[in-house]
Amino acid sequence: MSMPAEPLAQVLEEARRKGKLRAERFGDLAYLRLTDDLRRVPRGTVVHGGEAVYGYPRIGRILHLARGLREQFRHPVWVEEKIDGYNVRICRLGGRPVALTRGGFVCPFTTDRLPELLDLRLLEEEPDLVICAEVAGPENPYLEGGPPFIPEDVQLFVFDLMRRGRPGFLPREEVYARVEAYGLPAVPRYGRHGLEEVAALRALMKRLEEKGAEGIVLKEDAPEGRRAKYTTAYACVQDLRAGADAFTDLPPEYFTGRILRLALYLEEQGYAGEALEQVQRRLGAALVEGLLDAVARFRREGRVAQVYRCRLRSREAAEALLAHLRAGAGHAMRIVQRELRREGEHWRLVFERQPPSLNGLLGHLLRGGLVYD
Amino acid sequence: MSMPAEPLAQVLEEARRKGKLRAERFGDLAYLRLTDDLRRVPRGTVVHGGEAVYGYPRIGRILHLARGLREQFRHPVWVEEKIDGYNVRICRLGGRPVALTRGGFVCPFTTDRLPELLDLRLLEEEPDLVICAEVAGPENPYLEGGPPFIPEDVQLFVFDLMRRGRPGFLPREEVYARVEAYGLPAVPRYGRHGLEEVAALRALMKRLEEKGAEGIVLKEDAPEGRRAKYTTAYACVQDLRAGADAFTDLPPEYFTGRILRLALYLEEQGYAGEALEQVQRRLGAALVEGLLDAVARFRREGRVAQVYRCRLRSREAAEALLAHLRAGAGHAMRIVQRELRREGEHWRLVFERQPPSLNGLLGHLLRGGLVYD
Repeated sequence: MSMPAEPLAQVLEEARRKGKLRAERFGDLAYLRLTDDLRRVPRGTVVHGGEAVYGYPRIGRILHLARGLREQFRHPVWVEEKIDGYNVRICRLGGRPVALTRGGFVCPFTTDRLPELLDLRLLEEEPDLVICAEVAGPENPYLEGGPPFIPEDVQLFVFDLMRRGRPGFLPREEVYARVEAYGLPAVPRYGRHGLEEVAALRALMKRLEEKGAEGIVLKEDAPEGRRAKYTTAYACVQDLRAGADAFTDLPPEYFTGRILRLALYLEEQGYAGEALEQVQRRLGAALVEGLLDAVARFRREGRVAQVYRCRLRSREAAEALLAHLRAGAGHAMRIVQRELRREGEHWRLVFERQPPSLNGLLGHLLRGGLVYD
Repeated sequence: MSMPAEPLAQVLEEARRKGKLRAERFGDLAYLRLTDDLRRVPRGTVVHGGEAVYGYPRIGRILHLARGLREQFRHPVWVEEKIDGYNVRICRLGGRPVALTRGGFVCPFTTDRLPELLDLRLLEEEPDLVICAEVAGPENPYLEGGPPFIPEDVQLFVFDLMRRGRPGFLPREEVYARVEAYGLPAVPRYGRHGLEEVAALRALMKRLEEKGAEGIVLKEDAPEGRRAKYTTAYACVQDLRAGADAFTDLPPEYFTGRILRLALYLEEQGYAGEALEQVQRRLGAALVEGLLDAVARFRREGRVAQVYRCRLRSREAAEALLAHLRAGAGHAMRIVQRELRREGEHWRLVFERQPPSLNGLLGHLLRGGLVYD
C-alpha cells in the first residue's frame, strides 16, 4: 500500500461533501467513519481527534499459486496463515483501547473482550500503534462457525501493525519482534520464501488442507510490498456449505466464484483418483445438504434464521452489541435476542438474525411459484 | 396464452418505432422478426405477407411439483415429456415449409432437414397450421450433446399446433388427433392427470430420471389453460456439466439456479441415503470435471472452443447455416468451419464456436492474475 496521492484532510473534505464520512458514537466516544474507498484511502478509515486510523486495505486473491507468485511479486514473500474470522484494528481511541471493524465501527463485542484476547501493554508503550488481527472461533457475533482448530469461544490472531495517522504497515521483522516480545497471539508464520519455492508452498497448502485452515497470505519482502491471498479447497467447501443457508439471498457469484476457485486449486495441486473424488463428494454434499438443511428449517420455522452465540464480560457490552447489529441490519432483517444470562465469568448471549418470514425466492418456490429462466 | 390486448398491427407499428422489428432474409424470402416481447406478443413472432406467425411463449418452471400443481392450475393437466433440444415452429412461408427458431429466424439447418424429420403433408392439407416442435440429438448446430436416448443425428418431437395469424394453441385432443393421423413424431405423452395425482407424477419423474429425460410439461385442460415445466435431477446435473465449458462466460445464475432446482427436487422426491449420495457425487463431479476439462483445453489450445457436428442435405444449406451462425455470434466469437464433406446421403459439417484466445477471467486467473472478492 502506498501513500495516498492527496493529503488526508482534502480527501476527508471530499468524503464529507459526498456523504461518505459518517459521524458515529460508541458510548461517549465520537468519531468519523469513511464509508467507501476514496482516492486510495480505504473504506473503514476512522478519524478521531483530527487523526486517522487507516482502513485495512483489501488483499487480492490469486487462484494459481505458481503463476501468481511470478505475476504478482518481484521479491521473496513472507508466508502467513490466513485465519477464517473477521478483521479488526485495535488501537487507543479517546484514551482507551478499542477494536474497529473492517467498516470502521467500534465493535462492542471485540472491544469488550480485548483484555482476554491479548496483552494490551504494547498499546501502552507505543500508543500510536494499530494492531491488525483476525478474530475467529465458533462463538462470535458475525460469522457462523469457525476454524475446526478453535474448539470454543473466539481467539485473536495478530497479523499486521500500522501506525496511527499513516497508511501502510510496519515491516515484517518489526511486527514479528513485537509479537515475540509481548507474547501476542499471532497467525502461524511459515517463513520467507523465494518465488521459485512453489513445491514447498504446495506442500504447505497440503498440510493446511489437513488442518482445516483457510489458506495463506503472501507478503512481499520489500517496502510497500505487494500482497496476495491463496486459499485451500477446504475453505471453498466450507464457504459453500455455510452460504447454502442464505442461498437465494447471497449474490450468485458467491457460489460460482468458490466453485471456480476450488477447481483451479485441485488442478494446480494435481488432485486425481480417490483424492479428487473425495473432494467432489464433499462439494456435492456441501451444496445439497446445505440447501436441504435450509429447506427443512424453512418448512419448520417459516424462515432460515441464523443463530449466533457469544460470550461477553458485561451485560452492557451485550446490549451495545445488539444495538450495533440492529443498526447495521437491513430494515427487513431482525436481530432477536434469545438468551442473555450469566455463565461463570461471562454473560452468554444467544441471538438470531431473522430474515422476514416466508419471504423471498425460496418461499415463492416452496409454495409452488413459477420462475422464468 | 390469451389474446394480446391490442390489435397486432398497432403492436407491430410500436415495435417498428422502437427498433424491435427487424427485416430478415432467407434466400429470396423476406420477413419481419420481433426481437423482444411487446404487449403480450412474444419475441420471435414473424410477419410475412401481412400475416403473423406468433412466437412460442415462454413456459414458467415450477420447482415443487405438489405445490406447483395446486398453485398454478384449476383443472386437470395433460402431461407431456420435455425434450432437451431447441424449439422450432414449422410453417409454410412464401410457399414453402420453413422452421423458425425461438428468436424468429428461419433456421437453415432444420429447414433443410425438414423432409427427413417429419411428414409435411399436414401443412399441405392445413396450410395455416404452425407445428411447434423440439429438435434434439447429438448432431445439432446449437447445443452441445443431446438426450442419451437419441444415439445419433437429430430427431424431431412435435408438442403443439398453432394457427397462423392467431396466438394460442390448438386443444390437446386436436393436436393428438393430427399426430396420430399423420404419424408425426411427437413428445411422449403421459396422459391427463388430476391435480391430486402427485404420487403418480412423482413415480413418472423417477422413470424419466432413469431414462435420462429432461422432465415434463404440464398443460392445463382448459381453454387458454396455463402451463408449467418441471425437470429432473438428471437435467440439472447435465446442464451444470455442459455449462462448465463456459463457466466464466455464463451468468452465475445459470449455475446457482440449477443447484437450487436440484436440491428442491431431491427434497420433494425424498432422496436419502445412497441415492442422495449418488446425486451429490454426480453434482460434484459435473462441476469439477467440467471445469478441469475446460482448464485442460484452455491450456492446450489457449481457449475453450465448443465443437458442433451436424448433417445437412446440401452444401448450400451448410453454408447458409454458417452464415446464420456468424451473423448471430457476438463480434468476439468466431465460427470456424472444420469439415464440410459428403458422407453418404448427407453433407457432414463440423465447426467450432471459438471465443477469443486467452481472453476473459479464466485466462487472467491461469496467468496468475488477482481477483478482489
